[in-house]
Amino acid sequence: MGVDPGTNFTGYGIVEVVNRKPRCVTMGWIDLSKFDDPYLKLRHIFERVSGIIDAYKPTQVAFESPFFGENVQSMLKLGRAQGVAMAAALTKGVPVAEYAPRKVKISVTGNGSATKEQVATMLKNILKLELLPKKLDATDGLAVAMCHYYESCGVIPKSTGKGWSEFVKNNPDRIKK
Amino acid sequence: MGVDPGTNFTGYGIVEVVNRKPRCVTMGWIDLSKFDDPYLKLRHIFERVSGIIDAYKPTQVAFESPFFGENVQSMLKLGRAQGVAMAAALTKGVPVAEYAPRKVKISVTGNGSATKEQVATMLKNILKLELLPKKLDATDGLAVAMCHYYESCGVIPKSTGKGWSEFVKNNPDRIKK
Repeated sequence: MGVDPGTNFTGYGIVEVVNRKPRCVTMGWIDLSKFDDPYLKLRHIFERVSGIIDAYKPTQVAFESPFFGENVQSMLKLGRAQGVAMAAALTKGVPVAEYAPRKVKISVTGNGSATKEQVATMLKNILKLELLPKKLDATDGLAVAMCHYYESCGVIPKSTGKGWSEFVKNNPDRIKK
Repeated sequence: MGVDPGTNFTGYGIVEVVNRKPRCVTMGWIDLSKFDDPYLKLRHIFERVSGIIDAYKPTQVAFESPFFGENVQSMLKLGRAQGVAMAAALTKGVPVAEYAPRKVKISVTGNGSATKEQVATMLKNILKLELLPKKLDATDGLAVAMCHYYESCGVIPKSTGKGWSEFVKNNPDRIKK
């Protein structure tokens, strides 16, 4: 299971690996934008993440860590959101892992600066998703799950011919000098 | 109940108010220095804070927020520690509050830059503690509880004649110009 903690939307995705093939089991987002109270947000994150873990029983949960370029106030808010989401996994004895945003993007798209749309499109190809979700927080969560799959299984993602390096090679004129 | 979340030692203290008089019920610290794994630390914070809440059934839990002068990496670590401690209270439906370190020190000692020792000595006077704990993380936790008591009950701490302004008045030679 992958979780991308945010204080407005927390995305999640679950990947099942059968015969070394990853498959998307579910993905979605927890809507926190309706809560004004920061503590209600934290409580809701904990309860929803707990519920998802109870329902799908993931064997491992990976989290995206906040981007270090944030200011200290955002860092604290995101750290807390990540903390309560982690508490949900840790109290159930589910091992946790953590990846920087750049790491997640590189492992899925080959590009550490990929946009949410690029991440979503790449996941659609890799996991043969029929539709993309309305909110790309969900695919961001799924990307964390895929990153953990690649990292923990030592799998090097197969080039789909649509990776960033490929794009750069085919579009030399679009590279800023 | 007051909690001062830290990644090495998390201090806590519980104050009971009877006839408008605060009394120290208990205080202590959660030793996290023995854990290398940051996730084991977080899990331990959650479990210990949950256990203390179950045992003493506080009606409100106040947390000291990280100091904003920290760097973003410390902020994330402290934010997570605070997040899991908050999750322990929030999941039990106990209302939470939060105070900046400076606010806690001002409300207990009158001085926003008071040392741990000054905070402890002041609490010893106010709460008529017989002994101070070996680790002042415990009195830091107790200070958060007292700060919340002062704030939520609209109590202005009675001058004990030992406040910081008093100290400054009596020791003009010790003030840096």
